[in-house]
Amino acid sequence: MSFDLPEAVGKRIYVQGKIHPKIRVPMREIELSDSLFPDGSTEKNEPVRVYDCSGPWGDPSVNCTEETGLPRLRESWIEVRGDVQRAESGALRAVSADAPPTQRAYALRGVVTPEMEFVAIRENLGREEVFREVYDRFPNEKTRPEEAQLLLDELGTGMPRPSELEAQPGFSPASMQRRADLHYRHPADYAKRTGVHVPAYFTPEFVRDELAAGRALIPVNVNHPEAEPMIIGRHFLCKINANIGNSAISSGIRQEVQKLRRAIHWGADTVMDLSTGADIHRTREWILRNSPVPIGTVPVYQALEKCDGKVESLSWEVFRDTLIEQAEQGVDYVTLHAALLQRFVPFTAGRATGIVSRGGSIMAKWMMLHGSENFLYTHWDEICTILATYDVAVSIGDGLRPGSIADANDFPQLAELEVQGELTLSAWKRGVQVMNEGPGHVPLHFIPENMRKQLLWCHEAPFYTLGPLPTDIAPGYDHITGAIGGAIIAQRGCAMLCYVTRKEHLGLPDAEDVREAVVTYKLAAHAADLAKGHPAAQLRDNALAKARFEFRWEDQFNLSLDPQRAREYHDQTLPHSGAKKAHFCSMCGPNFCAMKLSQEVREMNNEKK
Amino acid sequence: MSFDLPEAVGKRIYVQGKIHPKIRVPMREIELSDSLFPDGSTEKNEPVRVYDCSGPWGDPSVNCTEETGLPRLRESWIEVRGDVQRAESGALRAVSADAPPTQRAYALRGVVTPEMEFVAIRENLGREEVFREVYDRFPNEKTRPEEAQLLLDELGTGMPRPSELEAQPGFSPASMQRRADLHYRHPADYAKRTGVHVPAYFTPEFVRDELAAGRALIPVNVNHPEAEPMIIGRHFLCKINANIGNSAISSGIRQEVQKLRRAIHWGADTVMDLSTGADIHRTREWILRNSPVPIGTVPVYQALEKCDGKVESLSWEVFRDTLIEQAEQGVDYVTLHAALLQRFVPFTAGRATGIVSRGGSIMAKWMMLHGSENFLYTHWDEICTILATYDVAVSIGDGLRPGSIADANDFPQLAELEVQGELTLSAWKRGVQVMNEGPGHVPLHFIPENMRKQLLWCHEAPFYTLGPLPTDIAPGYDHITGAIGGAIIAQRGCAMLCYVTRKEHLGLPDAEDVREAVVTYKLAAHAADLAKGHPAAQLRDNALAKARFEFRWEDQFNLSLDPQRAREYHDQTLPHSGAKKAHFCSMCGPNFCAMKLSQEVREMNNEKK
Repeated sequence: MSFDLPEAVGKRIYVQGKIHPKIRVPMREIELSDSLFPDGSTEKNEPVRVYDCSGPWGDPSVNCTEETGLPRLRESWIEVRGDVQRAESGALRAVSADAPPTQRAYALRGVVTPEMEFVAIRENLGREEVFREVYDRFPNEKTRPEEAQLLLDELGTGMPRPSELEAQPGFSPASMQRRADLHYRHPADYAKRTGVHVPAYFTPEFVRDELAAGRALIPVNVNHPEAEPMIIGRHFLCKINANIGNSAISSGIRQEVQKLRRAIHWGADTVMDLSTGADIHRTREWILRNSPVPIGTVPVYQALEKCDGKVESLSWEVFRDTLIEQAEQGVDYVTLHAALLQRFVPFTAGRATGIVSRGGSIMAKWMMLHGSENFLYTHWDEICTILATYDVAVSIGDGLRPGSIADANDFPQLAELEVQGELTLSAWKRGVQVMNEGPGHVPLHFIPENMRKQLLWCHEAPFYTLGPLPTDIAPGYDHITGAIGGAIIAQRGCAMLCYVTRKEHLGLPDAEDVREAVVTYKLAAHAADLAKGHPAAQLRDNALAKARFEFRWEDQFNLSLDPQRAREYHDQTLPHSGAKKAHFCSMCGPNFCAMKLSQEVREMNNEKK
Repeated sequence: MSFDLPEAVGKRIYVQGKIHPKIRVPMREIELSDSLFPDGSTEKNEPVRVYDCSGPWGDPSVNCTEETGLPRLRESWIEVRGDVQRAESGALRAVSADAPPTQRAYALRGVVTPEMEFVAIRENLGREEVFREVYDRFPNEKTRPEEAQLLLDELGTGMPRPSELEAQPGFSPASMQRRADLHYRHPADYAKRTGVHVPAYFTPEFVRDELAAGRALIPVNVNHPEAEPMIIGRHFLCKINANIGNSAISSGIRQEVQKLRRAIHWGADTVMDLSTGADIHRTREWILRNSPVPIGTVPVYQALEKCDGKVESLSWEVFRDTLIEQAEQGVDYVTLHAALLQRFVPFTAGRATGIVSRGGSIMAKWMMLHGSENFLYTHWDEICTILATYDVAVSIGDGLRPGSIADANDFPQLAELEVQGELTLSAWKRGVQVMNEGPGHVPLHFIPENMRKQLLWCHEAPFYTLGPLPTDIAPGYDHITGAIGGAIIAQRGCAMLCYVTRKEHLGLPDAEDVREAVVTYKLAAHAADLAKGHPAAQLRDNALAKARFEFRWEDQFNLSLDPQRAREYHDQTLPHSGAKKAHFCSMCGPNFCAMKLSQEVREMNNEKK
């Protein structure tokens, strides 16, 4: 490690593919110590496998340097398909426009690619079997055992009062436990209401079907073979994106690569390079060659740099060339503000905060200066053809997202969303993988409406939101504000959250800001995964809770999203090493520990039996 | 200031009462600079009034020291009512058990006390008039203008598609703006669904009616005249509580008073003293005499100290004496785990994390050891009589709250909640003000169910929750985890959130942890207030958003929940003082600023007209 990243806890393991035995899906496995009971007996605790975004950087047995870049994992997978060829520039591109090398096109043809099997294994977190009894994919509702269905129906309208249960014949702690378990583990009513149906087990075929339906995407440019496949869709784990990028004011190339490594160490699933300063091309090259996660960009930033920052000089031709340049370099997805139409711009004049999207305001100014429709909209088909040639996914931007609570859910925001839906359909027709970007600053009670409208108007394409931030008054804490909105919208099906750092609205994030933001968004996304009923998500919570209850401090730290932080905070109160084996915790001291008292209660209860 | 608290931004003002002209309600008023437009014209910005919990400590013209304590604000209000007398101990108590000096009893008799007018003015944030046109208290739905009602009906089912609106005759930005405003400002459908109906303007009579209905409480012991009245109820601003208190392991008395001052500086509405170590009585005395906010305790902690930590020695008599001691001292509300019944305890043995409430585990152990029912339950009427004598409010504890996602919404948790409802009714009968405590560790999709069941089973008594924490895997970040759950439950009517610090589960919070936690919970509570439609809440967001859009950096900092943090983060990127007047922000630099571009778009739009 050339800089101050802590070592990852646990060991890197790989799970092999079955359809494609050559694939090896990386995970992290966290070993746990045995439970030790007061009577001296012990119990083994299974290791916990967690999702790992750090790629070869997180595998101590791989020797990588920033100068040489990462191994070209997917190179042979791409070559063997025989549908790409080298262009003059050396970049790969489709042999024929009729057979784009996109994961969407393969899915529509019924093909299960190595990428699809890779993400299926990854989403299962290494589980080999379905372990839930009855919670299954909802199209197959009738296969559920009858008893479970009856309970689900009952629970759907809320459990009866505890006193009513107590009055039932045969009532006992054991019988109640079973009901409570079913209640928790099978949130049927909930899934029905939100339209988020996570399957009990992810198969490569399920991945393929979701891709074909447009409900998910795997952003992997054929020119970014270093990328490990990951999937974005509401029936999968919620993903998070971290933004990096220098601006005219600060930052250098090596720092950007280190920001990337830092972001993926803490768990960023994709990274957007939003550089706007000098050396955009070279910075991006370093980032791509060192990134195991998909890289997104906003190509109009570079196009504008080529025009010396003069919006009036911007043109379709400059933009097109920039898009091709980035596609050939390996960018996995691009944000295009193509749904911001000329007639919507006057509506922003009455807003509290006008246009707050950089890309959006560039396009708006261009349209005002030229009196013409947005060239991204008028050239959409040509753009889609370019994207399909390299399997670059498109993230249709929300240039008119609200920049304040006052502007939330207003006409220009919703008008643009409707056009995003129109563009989604035509991009799909050309085989392009699509997601839609969303707000922004939105009060809590408007968040579900944003998700519903996006699903409805954009035909269930994955939603990718920035925040949302449910209040404007907490600069310095906007990672938290955004995580509140993010958890809520992710729970309802938002597929990826773009992180907001605590420096948002104030300055550029440093290393600690990136760590804080990534971990904060991971916890928000994870909370949503639990609520979505992701079958493997709760294993980690259960393991951590058990470790906490049994005072296995080291296990508790190791299972945390940020083990170093957890250990550091513990040690501030009780620094001596004996305290990590103490059978009480540091808040209450030995006489007042609730967990300790509770264990004593449990023992007394056992003795009574 | 004897320690490192920053100065509050803005100036302390007081708003005088009308029914009770002697009352002066403290607020903070933040002056704003003028807007400066590119054509050289300016526009005045009204100052913004914000809620202020800091009491005399926040008024530079009041000279207070920790040794002398605070002025006895309410002494004359209490004396003039003539229903209390001095006991031998010197403490005030009811003259007659038939006429308890509780705010609930006054409300039931139709009296508007100075305390009630005080909180009405406070909740209005100094607004003198109703400024919403049509959003009114929902019982008066028929008084709404017809046009507004029609729009509300339309919006209740979601706005039509933008393209449908565009097709309507007379469609223009201005006509759309009006619809969007109504959409935003009058979340009728939302309020109907959640049962949270915040009035457009708070009158003392509204406060009285909410108190009489048991939907709110003003925790003010007659022996804590230093306390400034505040109200806890779902139709008011959401409140937050900060816990302080030493344990056997660390902390001293003066530090505890400083923790109190720090918590109220950042915005804690009440403070619980959870001390368990030596000097409990003396620590509490210092805290009470220096606290302008209500102080809560868990009396069983001190009762157990009196028994040298031996649960078996605990008895109703020791507890009763402790309760009277604390009531005479001036404690404003007490947590009593009276709803944790003997028959529920065996259900916790099968849990992942047993009992995690300190008070709950003490009572459970006592019941196991003695084979008897909870003495707090069996002596409930006697307890309520004591509480009513001093106007101590009761916070009925949730000793069986889940300590992990795995245990959420299980039988023992819900069984205790049902008994909380039973105890609420009998406490109300004796004139006692009541709230109910709630969880805990709860996944996102179970949170609304917790709120619904509490409202239903506990007869709309205010709910006061710890978190809830929607995942277990983020120790070190649990203030954020808790704020996510807190915002969601507060939006649905939870009246007060107990903060969780980032040290939760790991150690004791220090000064920075308290600051971080209070501000985090303030932002969560404020996000909920916006969603609840609190009429004054959004004024601050709007003012901050406007300042941000106009690059009035100092105003943006000053309107923040944590002005020092916002300024510090800004200065890390752009330290020179000129940058605070710069017409661009520090993330994008001068050429790429979206706000700047957007202002240019607005100007071009104006020129065109």
